[in-house]
Amino acid sequence: MKIIVDAMGGDNAPQAPVLGALQASEQLGVDIILVGRGEDILKVLQKNGRQELPKGVEIAHASQVVEICDDPANAFRRKKDSSLTVGLSLLKEGRGDGFVSAGSTGALLSAATLINKRIKGVRRAAMAPVVPTGNGGAVLIDCGANVKCPPEYLLQFAYMGSFYAEKLLGRENPKVGLLNIGAEPSKGTDLQVEVYPLLEAAGREGRINFVGNVEAREAVEGAVDVIVADGYAGNIFLKTMEGTGLFLAREIKKMFKKNLLTKLSALLVSGGLKEFKKIMSSGEVGGTALVGISKPVIKAHGSSDAYAIRNAVRQAVEYSQSGMIESIAAHIDQMRLEPLKKTQE
Amino acid sequence: MKIIVDAMGGDNAPQAPVLGALQASEQLGVDIILVGRGEDILKVLQKNGRQELPKGVEIAHASQVVEICDDPANAFRRKKDSSLTVGLSLLKEGRGDGFVSAGSTGALLSAATLINKRIKGVRRAAMAPVVPTGNGGAVLIDCGANVKCPPEYLLQFAYMGSFYAEKLLGRENPKVGLLNIGAEPSKGTDLQVEVYPLLEAAGREGRINFVGNVEAREAVEGAVDVIVADGYAGNIFLKTMEGTGLFLAREIKKMFKKNLLTKLSALLVSGGLKEFKKIMSSGEVGGTALVGISKPVIKAHGSSDAYAIRNAVRQAVEYSQSGMIESIAAHIDQMRLEPLKKTQE
Repeated sequence: MKIIVDAMGGDNAPQAPVLGALQASEQLGVDIILVGRGEDILKVLQKNGRQELPKGVEIAHASQVVEICDDPANAFRRKKDSSLTVGLSLLKEGRGDGFVSAGSTGALLSAATLINKRIKGVRRAAMAPVVPTGNGGAVLIDCGANVKCPPEYLLQFAYMGSFYAEKLLGRENPKVGLLNIGAEPSKGTDLQVEVYPLLEAAGREGRINFVGNVEAREAVEGAVDVIVADGYAGNIFLKTMEGTGLFLAREIKKMFKKNLLTKLSALLVSGGLKEFKKIMSSGEVGGTALVGISKPVIKAHGSSDAYAIRNAVRQAVEYSQSGMIESIAAHIDQMRLEPLKKTQE
Repeated sequence: MKIIVDAMGGDNAPQAPVLGALQASEQLGVDIILVGRGEDILKVLQKNGRQELPKGVEIAHASQVVEICDDPANAFRRKKDSSLTVGLSLLKEGRGDGFVSAGSTGALLSAATLINKRIKGVRRAAMAPVVPTGNGGAVLIDCGANVKCPPEYLLQFAYMGSFYAEKLLGRENPKVGLLNIGAEPSKGTDLQVEVYPLLEAAGREGRINFVGNVEAREAVEGAVDVIVADGYAGNIFLKTMEGTGLFLAREIKKMFKKNLLTKLSALLVSGGLKEFKKIMSSGEVGGTALVGISKPVIKAHGSSDAYAIRNAVRQAVEYSQSGMIESIAAHIDQMRLEPLKKTQE
């Protein structure tokens, strides 16, 4: 198993991606290709007391870096020698089993779609993070890749999310819910109203375990394994969770920092506090899979530290081994409103 | 100042509304009309050791109750002698200065719109709760009353929310943000893309302080005083906050309940824990104003206890005294795409 890591992507590059990849190599036994400016990568190694590349780790030189200010749709074409373009091309050529980047989301999504292609029949790749919920996490699909969605996109998200929950989170017969503002099929915008019967039919035929609409509150509390949403609503959901977690964590910190007694209190629950932080930390999961792309591509959070990158590499390995991509390809006819064969005729 | 309270609405009726109204009467010096089944109201009083109505509190008998299973759009017409219909009719006749109910949201919204009417020129009334944020709370408008919104609705929500933040939260020149998934004006669904220039123009003319798009995370952290959203997105935002708050509160409880030492720790921060609970408690604010209706109508949370009802009564008083309704009426020409005069010609 070999994972290609974008050494130049993210707020803490090249330090975090390089060290995170090394951690993955040492702790998980994964082979690594670090893509980026060779001299910058070697500098990080030297600064951390390593005079040579560890066994199983290689460097693929790429002289350019895609910056946040680059136009996401064209960055990979304009910067043909960027770590993004070189890394995804290596993935395409089969030189690695997955790709991890903490760089620009938009550029990664465009580049992966054009270089690595979507699985045949998949209308749009989706960003599918695992969000912390009362049932130990749920797959949110989509969370921002597709703002304007016809109903078929959401039907596909439901299937793809269901495969993800089954194969990567180990959920048997995962419960799929449509993110909405009430239980009745008539609730929501035109999109939800149109998607509901499609999901219901897929459920009736035993293809997915559709449990109906799920309200945001119940979704957080753990009512479902898969939360189906268009990219706009999914993003609002994800970012509200993040914001509320940060806001409350700050309030808790204030509470513990008030005086000597409260500081003592913090010591007494320090183990619990660590657990608590873990729940809300995006770094634990690793990153967000670009589901629907024909190869494993993981977007790590822009602010990833080495530990988060290590976990994103682990996630890429798991994604590659899960059979996700094969399952999507095998079921594509069920996932389309117009069966693929007809379209090809 | 006299507030009309629906004694039969909510999960804890008539107990909570009756006792909450009495608290408001005693602690805030507000006169009260309790609307509902006289015998049920008197029973609550007797059970709580009161043989007669306190001074300043009267009962308006209504024999029927709007239930959650009633069709919201027609409940108030079908049940003409319900506490909802009778209460709002008293409000219309000027017998009280505001109305508070913890009953069905949909029924209250329909009934208030048809009995008390919208302010002339207001296209749709909005549900505008004050949500807990890093800047001490922000007005979220709308949170579910209007799922399908043409751009003009959101323009009006921005103005109405701005008046609310100024007059009820005491914010000077309140910052208005459009709930979105990125900063650029091109972000979001068609609705946000169309609304952005309208809000920008209103900002340029100095009518509102439009600060641009606001992402959900920044909104929770306190970037703006007014969060403008369609009812679908606003509801996702609100319910995700609620769910995350409940989820994390449960995790914190678990952390403190682990063993004797952690229980001791909880004692040491008990004051802080109370503050923390207050932040996320909907009962502190009172309820959600139906902004755009020509009279003050406050929807209290269905699960309100007496304290939450007391606060909803306080909120109705403040709303009535704030000049909100007068301000909306005075600025209605600025809030319409087609000026009102033209429409009337």
